[in-house]
Amino acid sequence: MGKGGKSHQEGEENMAAWLVGLNTLKIQPFKLPPLGPHDVRVRMKAVGICGSDVHFLKTLRLADFVVKEPMVIGHECAGIIEEIGSEVKNLVPGDRVALEPGIGCWRCDLCKEGRYNICPDMKFFATPPVHGSLARQVVHPADLCFKLPDNLSLEEGAMCEPLSVAVHACRRANIGPETNVLVMGAGPIGLVTLLAAHAFGAPRVVVVDVDDYRLSVANNLGADGVVKVSTNMQDIPQEVERICEMMGAVGVHAITMTVPLTPAAAREVDIIGIFRYKNTWPLCIELLRSGKIDVKPLITHRFGFSQKEVEEAFETSARGGDAIKVMFNL
Amino acid sequence: MGKGGKSHQEGEENMAAWLVGLNTLKIQPFKLPPLGPHDVRVRMKAVGICGSDVHFLKTLRLADFVVKEPMVIGHECAGIIEEIGSEVKNLVPGDRVALEPGIGCWRCDLCKEGRYNICPDMKFFATPPVHGSLARQVVHPADLCFKLPDNLSLEEGAMCEPLSVAVHACRRANIGPETNVLVMGAGPIGLVTLLAAHAFGAPRVVVVDVDDYRLSVANNLGADGVVKVSTNMQDIPQEVERICEMMGAVGVHAITMTVPLTPAAAREVDIIGIFRYKNTWPLCIELLRSGKIDVKPLITHRFGFSQKEVEEAFETSARGGDAIKVMFNL
Amino acid sequence: MGKGGKSHQEGEENMAAWLVGLNTLKIQPFKLPPLGPHDVRVRMKAVGICGSDVHFLKTLRLADFVVKEPMVIGHECAGIIEEIGSEVKNLVPGDRVALEPGIGCWRCDLCKEGRYNICPDMKFFATPPVHGSLARQVVHPADLCFKLPDNLSLEEGAMCEPLSVAVHACRRANIGPETNVLVMGAGPIGLVTLLAAHAFGAPRVVVVDVDDYRLSVANNLGADGVVKVSTNMQDIPQEVERICEMMGAVGVHAITMTVPLTPAAAREVDIIGIFRYKNTWPLCIELLRSGKIDVKPLITHRFGFSQKEVEEAFETSARGGDAIKVMFNL
Amino acid sequence: MGKGGKSHQEGEENMAAWLVGLNTLKIQPFKLPPLGPHDVRVRMKAVGICGSDVHFLKTLRLADFVVKEPMVIGHECAGIIEEIGSEVKNLVPGDRVALEPGIGCWRCDLCKEGRYNICPDMKFFATPPVHGSLARQVVHPADLCFKLPDNLSLEEGAMCEPLSVAVHACRRANIGPETNVLVMGAGPIGLVTLLAAHAFGAPRVVVVDVDDYRLSVANNLGADGVVKVSTNMQDIPQEVERICEMMGAVGVHAITMTVPLTPAAAREVDIIGIFRYKNTWPLCIELLRSGKIDVKPLITHRFGFSQKEVEEAFETSARGGDAIKVMFNL
Repeated sequence: MGKGGKSHQEGEENMAAWLVGLNTLKIQPFKLPPLGPHDVRVRMKAVGICGSDVHFLKTLRLADFVVKEPMVIGHECAGIIEEIGSEVKNLVPGDRVALEPGIGCWRCDLCKEGRYNICPDMKFFATPPVHGSLARQVVHPADLCFKLPDNLSLEEGAMCEPLSVAVHACRRANIGPETNVLVMGAGPIGLVTLLAAHAFGAPRVVVVDVDDYRLSVANNLGADGVVKVSTNMQDIPQEVERICEMMGAVGVHAITMTVPLTPAAAREVDIIGIFRYKNTWPLCIELLRSGKIDVKPLITHRFGFSQKEVEEAFETSARGGDAIKVMFNL
Repeated sequence: MGKGGKSHQEGEENMAAWLVGLNTLKIQPFKLPPLGPHDVRVRMKAVGICGSDVHFLKTLRLADFVVKEPMVIGHECAGIIEEIGSEVKNLVPGDRVALEPGIGCWRCDLCKEGRYNICPDMKFFATPPVHGSLARQVVHPADLCFKLPDNLSLEEGAMCEPLSVAVHACRRANIGPETNVLVMGAGPIGLVTLLAAHAFGAPRVVVVDVDDYRLSVANNLGADGVVKVSTNMQDIPQEVERICEMMGAVGVHAITMTVPLTPAAAREVDIIGIFRYKNTWPLCIELLRSGKIDVKPLITHRFGFSQKEVEEAFETSARGGDAIKVMFNL
Repeated sequence: MGKGGKSHQEGEENMAAWLVGLNTLKIQPFKLPPLGPHDVRVRMKAVGICGSDVHFLKTLRLADFVVKEPMVIGHECAGIIEEIGSEVKNLVPGDRVALEPGIGCWRCDLCKEGRYNICPDMKFFATPPVHGSLARQVVHPADLCFKLPDNLSLEEGAMCEPLSVAVHACRRANIGPETNVLVMGAGPIGLVTLLAAHAFGAPRVVVVDVDDYRLSVANNLGADGVVKVSTNMQDIPQEVERICEMMGAVGVHAITMTVPLTPAAAREVDIIGIFRYKNTWPLCIELLRSGKIDVKPLITHRFGFSQKEVEEAFETSARGGDAIKVMFNL
Repeated sequence: MGKGGKSHQEGEENMAAWLVGLNTLKIQPFKLPPLGPHDVRVRMKAVGICGSDVHFLKTLRLADFVVKEPMVIGHECAGIIEEIGSEVKNLVPGDRVALEPGIGCWRCDLCKEGRYNICPDMKFFATPPVHGSLARQVVHPADLCFKLPDNLSLEEGAMCEPLSVAVHACRRANIGPETNVLVMGAGPIGLVTLLAAHAFGAPRVVVVDVDDYRLSVANNLGADGVVKVSTNMQDIPQEVERICEMMGAVGVHAITMTVPLTPAAAREVDIIGIFRYKNTWPLCIELLRSGKIDVKPLITHRFGFSQKEVEEAFETSARGGDAIKVMFNL
């Protein structure tokens, strides 16, 4: 047993929210894996609901990932260190940390090239068959737990996960003071992309959505322009043209989308593939700490960790409407 | 009048191949523009036919460019300097040169950033309303005429133009000894891309086409593999997947093509837009001079510059079959 | 004669500040070159003094450039359009513009690659034998005159020149929200580098100098830290080590400086060469317009354009002390 | 115990060459560490001597690394798999492998960014206090053992290590068909850099040295030019100027070298720091397999693994002269 340990496998202590079938979440006991020398045990305090969590709940799959066995859900999270492994140097019990959810294999070429986000053997919270983090406690590698400064809340810590998607996109797209940015969609990822693009120095960030409420949120978060688009096919050509003149978007698109590749090539537009993130937590924490980004307005709903509240929280998130980010306080 | 000048506006001397209407080319007199201080007058000796020339002939348009007035056709060319402008230092009459066909404005942001290939005010041979170079003589800026070393023929000089497309693509895609390359289509551009990719160090270049003959040419040019694809829609998914695992293609695609953007994003595949080329002639000449690339096998048909032969040459190029590059010797 | 022209070659109208010998500046008539079709004639309104101007005055040389003939001095400038060439579309008389001082040849490889700042044939204000812009009027290419928005003064326009050095350095060094920056020297270039680095998102910019006053200015401009260094050789090792751990510096160094290349290599530190700037005016103007950068506090002294004031202004700049940027109002 | 194991800790089986004091190597027993689930046990067959090995022998230090305890020497190596850990999937006993000598921590920011070569906690063969690989057997992570194709010898496998330095430098310097390369020094690293630069497509590789014999080897390996330089200080300025016009060099420089930084900056020359290598073995093996690089001519001397031969081999390597790469066959 590592340092700071105490009995932690009983009663309330080891409950987690399991995805047990279509549209069915159950709070049930979750047996923690053993604490390795480089691991820490974390008491979860804040867990956000992601669109992919809802997608798994509603369809039991996402892209090629299929839920075949009951699985603990959740991956946007922060908590407090309870116990540290024998070799852990950078953390002590009591530290407040944000968790990066994916563990690379560190043996494949992609990991070694620094592209661990696309490691084929990655173990990622709540990507089947790996369990997630909407649980009282989890065991996680210490190097993926990032200490929060005093002026950041645990909820802000959990928000580092969606913010990371935006930061990774801004890095890959090389956003800077000369890059005008068009964000397609004002959901949580679109909105954090707006915030991140500004933090990267983008002089003009325009947000597109079909929904007036979401665009009003984008406006409040500092969008330099918002565009309401129709869902009418015949309006697409002009909209696509405007998009091609500006820069990319982040999110899970439909498999088939019509992109005018020839006109894009004629302007030497590049389309950059983005998948999750890598090495983003330190930057996210710094951007939040220094006040360059404020994610608090995105958290619109909060729930506790009871069976009833978990169900209600996912319903709220799935319904959309005025719900941007739904957060559990455990 | 510049140095080396003599009467050049009469008789045979000033004939050019004009695109005067749908499917109609006429050899007619072409009045040369005045020779500026930084210009040279070049006697054309070798001019190749490009797919875009054929496209203009058959449809009077290409993408957004429409032929509204009679226009001299042709843009893949090399010739011999006849006269140089008063400020020209790097060339003398008698020099054998390959011509880069596009003249940037050098005043717009794109030109100044070194992306003159996408200058909106570019004047490019045979892109309406600018006249082309299938003519006895042309006037062109000296800095766009590149002296050929003794061991290169004027035909090889003309081949620098299609080769430039391939070189620009290899540069933009950062081809090197670690890049496997998939070339989609074994037409002239596909084949020079195969050659250029190898010159850039690519260890494995695979060529895809629907035509057996063209694939056999790719094989002879050193393709590390060739793949015959069907035109059957239902075969596409596997083919697209293979393509996404390797690297890009060059050419004018149909406006609408189905690209699996989500799986591409999940592997962080980048799609790089390519338009023509920039700063490629010196490298093309060096690659040909040193023997790293041999374009001579691509020249399958040769024609003289009479009305009958011009018509026949374009028919040959349009028919495809065993014609790869059709070349005029003037 | 172009549009908007009127008699402009007489009396006060054509005076300029000539560097006529060591430590000797004379206000004398300056014959403007003819106005080309793409040129504009500009009435100078604000001209700053650069360290290189002072260097030329005190030594008649800078690096390889030697003043052999009397030369009009000055290159940081802004003014009002008086007359435009026949082909100029983007400007009209009365427009307030900032001038980029260097004219590339647009025929060499470097210009075509977008690296016109290192064009060997560049014509640059007040780099011998090219005349500068501390003159009542100058003729300049229209595409190097950038219109100022209403909320920027002509002095701020002139400040685009030193700011450009900083912006170019930030671009080349790829400054962003993850780059800590150490600026060596709190002279005008060091100070604008501080401002630009913050505008590029740098989270921490530390400024080093030997002078307390200059460091206090850096502090007022938002430096995240300032370090006073000694001029004592034996203190260098630790200082160099700190520098190598952070990022580059801008300015004209002594030819010989001791850089610990082996330890630098062991950390794969890159040393990026910076020379002047390219394509920076639009970004500088945008950064000033949006308020992300405020250069006004750098302008510490102002002078008119009389013989006496010109001498006094250069003395003030040369003396240093509390003079950061000395500006002429013409 | 893993698969394929047998008794391996006795007699000849566990001997290694220990650096036990200044100029003193002793063949002595070496206790192998336990075989972890992702490790393999390798019987060493070919081990080359590196300049750094000689440096440690002669001075007991290199840069900041000091030999304080007896240490097994050697790090350029290849061998045959004897035993594999329980989780190893990609190798089986009998496989011939080249070993990458450095093990990153995979927990620090640098490892995660793909820059594991500059990981501060790297464990690297024969960099104190880590033991090297001039031993009958070593235990090493399976993912750092790269299977050799049939047409490569174990000696060529060992040469992947010095070749990796060159490949990493070519990658970092972005060598391609447009990069002229100047190699400073025709020692083993200089010579493999010559070979690698050509494999990356460099059109012109010039090698500089003070020694005629080494330059003749460079010539035989295909250098496009060789330059004999003097050791006379006053000849340096012109030589440095030529160097600055071309591209970088690899090796351990003296701490203080005079680099003309101001002229370098004026041409925007970049100085790129290089330390060891990362992710190079697969490429090295491919370059050797395909015949694009032939390292066999570099192996000038071979020795067996007796006390007398080890001493003689290091003497041979230290003496220089006609010794390029000295190789042990175990």
